[in-house]
Amino acid sequence: MRYVIGIDIGGTNIVVGTVAEDGSDVLGLVSQPTISEQGADAVLERIAKLARASMAAARGKEIAGVGIGSPGPLNTTTGVVLLTPNLGWTNFPLRDRLAHALDLPATLDNDANCAIFGEWWRGAARGVRHVVGLTIGTGIGGGIVLDGEVYRGASDIAGEIGHMTIELNGRRCKCGNDGCLEAYASGPAIAARAVEGIESGATTSLPQYVNGDLRKITAQLVYEAANDGDDYAYEVVKDTARFLGAGVANIINIFNPEVVVICGGVTLAGDRLFGPLRGEAKRRAFKPAVDVCRIVPGALTGTAGVYGAAAVFMRRTWGRV
Amino acid sequence: MRYVIGIDIGGTNIVVGTVAEDGSDVLGLVSQPTISEQGADAVLERIAKLARASMAAARGKEIAGVGIGSPGPLNTTTGVVLLTPNLGWTNFPLRDRLAHALDLPATLDNDANCAIFGEWWRGAARGVRHVVGLTIGTGIGGGIVLDGEVYRGASDIAGEIGHMTIELNGRRCKCGNDGCLEAYASGPAIAARAVEGIESGATTSLPQYVNGDLRKITAQLVYEAANDGDDYAYEVVKDTARFLGAGVANIINIFNPEVVVICGGVTLAGDRLFGPLRGEAKRRAFKPAVDVCRIVPGALTGTAGVYGAAAVFMRRTWGRV
Repeated sequence: MRYVIGIDIGGTNIVVGTVAEDGSDVLGLVSQPTISEQGADAVLERIAKLARASMAAARGKEIAGVGIGSPGPLNTTTGVVLLTPNLGWTNFPLRDRLAHALDLPATLDNDANCAIFGEWWRGAARGVRHVVGLTIGTGIGGGIVLDGEVYRGASDIAGEIGHMTIELNGRRCKCGNDGCLEAYASGPAIAARAVEGIESGATTSLPQYVNGDLRKITAQLVYEAANDGDDYAYEVVKDTARFLGAGVANIINIFNPEVVVICGGVTLAGDRLFGPLRGEAKRRAFKPAVDVCRIVPGALTGTAGVYGAAAVFMRRTWGRV
Repeated sequence: MRYVIGIDIGGTNIVVGTVAEDGSDVLGLVSQPTISEQGADAVLERIAKLARASMAAARGKEIAGVGIGSPGPLNTTTGVVLLTPNLGWTNFPLRDRLAHALDLPATLDNDANCAIFGEWWRGAARGVRHVVGLTIGTGIGGGIVLDGEVYRGASDIAGEIGHMTIELNGRRCKCGNDGCLEAYASGPAIAARAVEGIESGATTSLPQYVNGDLRKITAQLVYEAANDGDDYAYEVVKDTARFLGAGVANIINIFNPEVVVICGGVTLAGDRLFGPLRGEAKRRAFKPAVDVCRIVPGALTGTAGVYGAAAVFMRRTWGRV
């Protein structure tokens, strides 16, 4: 049994694990904050240290290589990260730098592609032909797996589902477009909508969670308040479900997948989110398409990207996972 | 050289041609109104007559089979049309009925899939890996060709790009959803928006084109008036371009294709439409994705579906086109 190191680089945290080639096990799962402000070299060194720590925990196993998942846009052929606003990298040869530091062959792919490929390989979408997924956090990423292969498009940009316009003249998105799904349903967007309602006079206990400092309201706090019975927070969750439901309906009408998988912190909202989300998708999408599609939360909380990054390496190197 | 009959069934017209296996030629191109009110049997008989007329024009050639493109939803495996609101068919075994009538093997696929596959094989998207297309007429169909293969999804429903929500609480669509692209930019939707503006007091010569009977305004008349210098009609075209541009931007962000091809009567509006459409797509989509994508009108006016239906037969039967 060979093992592959899976590396999931996020804007907040780096997660690394050593994954068995049959996906049955992940050894030496380790994590540290990204601290991108320290610059690319410091982050690279931190990633290499985490990888060495993970390998140490997998002592005695044959390590065949490294799969890296990173925010993009990036080039999967050259292994270069072209631009990551969150990490501050430009034309950074991440794959080869890390391969050199660890003296192992490496592959690079988009973080959301890795997460959804991980869910396809070992998670909530195991065994299906077509799965499309969203990773909801600071932004909304998307991954597309068709016939069991990551779909990357003409230049590795495919899958930017979070930047689908769902409201023509809607909320301004960080990408420069108006009305992107991400501008409504990313973590910060959920918090922003909650704060806007409070500032407009909504009755809610949410300010008590942050001692009145509304800047400290997060999506997680909104879910917490909704779970604690706060009606307003629950309304914010239901609005989020409607926005996501419209986006998911679009995915269903376009891809007719067996599974739409939704990953990230938003899944903490549980059925309070997924109930109205499924209802909205059902209301909007074509019946014969929505009838064959499961809409589910990711099953590999915190490790989907690690599994998927390793799986991309295996697929690229050995032609299979 | 073998030949395949390509059949393109539309809500208004049926077009049939006999296509050379290398795509170099189409013989016996014939067309008739569909007249779906006469019922499925009458339409089937009309299709068979057209096919025989086309074969007669291709006398002496070896005819290997029949490729059929039909509105859906349909099942490409069983060859059954499940439901076509425009044609009034329910669970109609179109492929086998026609194969029997013509005594030839046949394949069935969605009309928009055929049109875009035709554009990929012999038209505006020749030679590219990934093309996504829209067919704009009474409705807005969509076809997806990835790595040179029609992408059909889990149950042959994929590609319903016209039913992508672009405005959450927008115009009601015939499909039951709100804010579909089709509700803004199909032929009837373009006419409806033009009429609404006139009824709200817009200054325009459009009513003169229809002797004051606004019900007779069509999308084609709007393009004609715009070409004749009518400012209001041009505004309607530019609005159409903006709606389509948002939809195309979504396609570009999701699929990162080399080509987005737009087929149908709307292409008559020419650069008046495609100029602002490209501008809107560029404004909304990710730069590295939009930079590698051509947005073009279909090149096989009136015959894309015939070429594509024949090509689907060839691909399914011979494994190649």
